[in-house]
Amino acid sequence: MSTLNTQQFIAPIALEKAYRLLNHGPTTLISAQCGEDRDVMAAAWVSVLDFNPSKVTVVIDKISHTRTLIEKSGFFAVQIPTAALLKLTVNVGSVSMKDDPNKLTKLKVPLFYQNDFNIPLVQGCAGWMICKLIKEPHNQQTYDLFIGEVVAAWSDTRVFKDGHWHFENADNSLRTIHHVAGGHFYLIGEPADVDFDS
Amino acid sequence: MSTLNTQQFIAPIALEKAYRLLNHGPTTLISAQCGEDRDVMAAAWVSVLDFNPSKVTVVIDKISHTRTLIEKSGFFAVQIPTAALLKLTVNVGSVSMKDDPNKLTKLKVPLFYQNDFNIPLVQGCAGWMICKLIKEPHNQQTYDLFIGEVVAAWSDTRVFKDGHWHFENADNSLRTIHHVAGGHFYLIGEPADVDFDS
Repeated sequence: MSTLNTQQFIAPIALEKAYRLLNHGPTTLISAQCGEDRDVMAAAWVSVLDFNPSKVTVVIDKISHTRTLIEKSGFFAVQIPTAALLKLTVNVGSVSMKDDPNKLTKLKVPLFYQNDFNIPLVQGCAGWMICKLIKEPHNQQTYDLFIGEVVAAWSDTRVFKDGHWHFENADNSLRTIHHVAGGHFYLIGEPADVDFDS
Repeated sequence: MSTLNTQQFIAPIALEKAYRLLNHGPTTLISAQCGEDRDVMAAAWVSVLDFNPSKVTVVIDKISHTRTLIEKSGFFAVQIPTAALLKLTVNVGSVSMKDDPNKLTKLKVPLFYQNDFNIPLVQGCAGWMICKLIKEPHNQQTYDLFIGEVVAAWSDTRVFKDGHWHFENADNSLRTIHHVAGGHFYLIGEPADVDFDS
């Protein structure tokens, strides 16, 4: 698939700018790994919690195998899928590893790793954040709410560079996807700017 | 302003569908009131937490007067501003009531009320949710994170109806706005659908 990233387009993001991957509210892919056991799921209920250092919240149902891996390993990745990954996002969000242990292979989820981190990342995303779980057992148990601090982040520089999105100058297949319900999404659209002092 | 709602376009949303106002990640306006004291602020760090009943999370800085009003009254509104309210959203997010007690009057924020609720709502939004604060002092103090349960919700039926957004059939001025940083936003764009079983 021509829109999948190759290493040449991936560059690190300064940690205090990483929250901007999420600020405009895209649907995400969450992944985690413990030993050889790994999983990827979709999550729309994700938000920035802080920016310096960047922290995120994500809601993860108790039935998710990804959740088990996060609780075991203490780490997870938050990734920003693009229009090119729309079907993959719906599919990894529809099938549970608990029902089909071969989910990732069957769905042909294209994974890669960054140095120093044993967390599978999905090729073709516009951005990737690796988060260290900040344990809050009451939130996790009562609300399925997980908090993570971003410890590393990268973007596809064709669409996110110098701390900003550049959707209007990139291929439409690199636009972020924003979930409504079922298989229904919207792509991010056109820029709109206000003079901050006006 | 022609795009401001008039009462004829506002209809209640079933509470279990209210989360869909937020699911695609729009930037929001938060308002609260205690007695005659009221405030409106902008917030991008807002997420769905649950859907039945609909619950939300929102991050609100300690310097915000809106936060004081939420803590006093136990209620707040989460509203979905449209492109027509872009400048207003930036302005209410830039000026604090603590610096200018006449903020709402000076900025000419057009407010209205729904029966039974003493919370100011901003005209021209695409959706409005009134939330009852679920007190979680540790989250509020440590993370500036507030949890609310939606107790009433309405939409502008020109753009959200029957539990779904209809941006593609509405005027562009009714598109939701998605914040990146400073005065830089993106509008929500075009629909993208996947056959859920494909």
